[in-house]
Amino acid sequence: MKENRDKLSKGYVQIYTGNGKGKTTAAIGQAVRAAGFGLTTYIVQFMKEFPYNELNSLKHLSKWITIEQFGGDDFVYKKELPGKEDLKKAQKGLSAAKEKMLSGEYDLIILDEVIVAIYYKLFKTKELIDFIKQKPENVELILTGRYCPEELIGIADLVTEMNEVKHYYQKGITSRKGIES
Amino acid sequence: MKENRDKLSKGYVQIYTGNGKGKTTAAIGQAVRAAGFGLTTYIVQFMKEFPYNELNSLKHLSKWITIEQFGGDDFVYKKELPGKEDLKKAQKGLSAAKEKMLSGEYDLIILDEVIVAIYYKLFKTKELIDFIKQKPENVELILTGRYCPEELIGIADLVTEMNEVKHYYQKGITSRKGIES
Repeated sequence: MKENRDKLSKGYVQIYTGNGKGKTTAAIGQAVRAAGFGLTTYIVQFMKEFPYNELNSLKHLSKWITIEQFGGDDFVYKKELPGKEDLKKAQKGLSAAKEKMLSGEYDLIILDEVIVAIYYKLFKTKELIDFIKQKPENVELILTGRYCPEELIGIADLVTEMNEVKHYYQKGITSRKGIES
Repeated sequence: MKENRDKLSKGYVQIYTGNGKGKTTAAIGQAVRAAGFGLTTYIVQFMKEFPYNELNSLKHLSKWITIEQFGGDDFVYKKELPGKEDLKKAQKGLSAAKEKMLSGEYDLIILDEVIVAIYYKLFKTKELIDFIKQKPENVELILTGRYCPEELIGIADLVTEMNEVKHYYQKGITSRKGIES
């Protein structure tokens, strides 16, 4: 961590939701922009055990950006509720994020896919609200994921809905390395 | 540039438009993800002479990502049409992007704010359509900016509209370094 680094004088709560492409990449891009000003970011990714390619490139910015993954999304494909192990990993991720948020060492905390994780019963909305309420004044908090509950929209400062107007998946394109993952 | 690098087998045309936050950061995040897979990106930014902080951090990924700016947006604030110099810089940026797109050295080409640049008369829609038509098969092209003309939506493969549901600007917050710029 950089000594005597710049800090945010005021941090807000941002939400990126909606069914369109660009939620996670917008959060990553925000962390990269912040790094350019010397701000530090901790990113926790839920429901993503598969190593997305941003993990490789963000290593080059490890002085400013730390990224960790807690749990996958197998239970979604099995059309099951999350199992004990899934719930445990999710809680571990949220605890890690809380510790980092309160440590004073990070300016941005990103909870990637935490909102869709509520939809899939990994978290209760109330848990997230409690988390948000503990945000220190000078920390920016970014939550991403589709299906955002109204209660979260109510307490966020900035909410952007990424809407899919047109998507090449409709043409039967599958996920491409480096683009979708 | 990396020798024998991975390439995209098929590239598409992506558009990030709408009045919400997250268009440029989504494009930057996409470039960062692509870099993690060894893909190379050329980013040209229009109407942004001010050095956004991503310019600093992307230097650490310069093996994969090149970013350049062509012209500012003073004329917008003066409520004037773009002047000769503005038009010249915009053309220079588009030419640079075209050269990089056809060079075979880049997998992603990002024209940041090019869409709003049409709205402000820096480009004609037709110029952009001609540009898109020259895209090689294995290059991904990303255009960002609000006020997207229907003709561009028609020829794009993926269009995401970032809608502002709630914005802290409404609270009178001004731009913060590392977050908005």
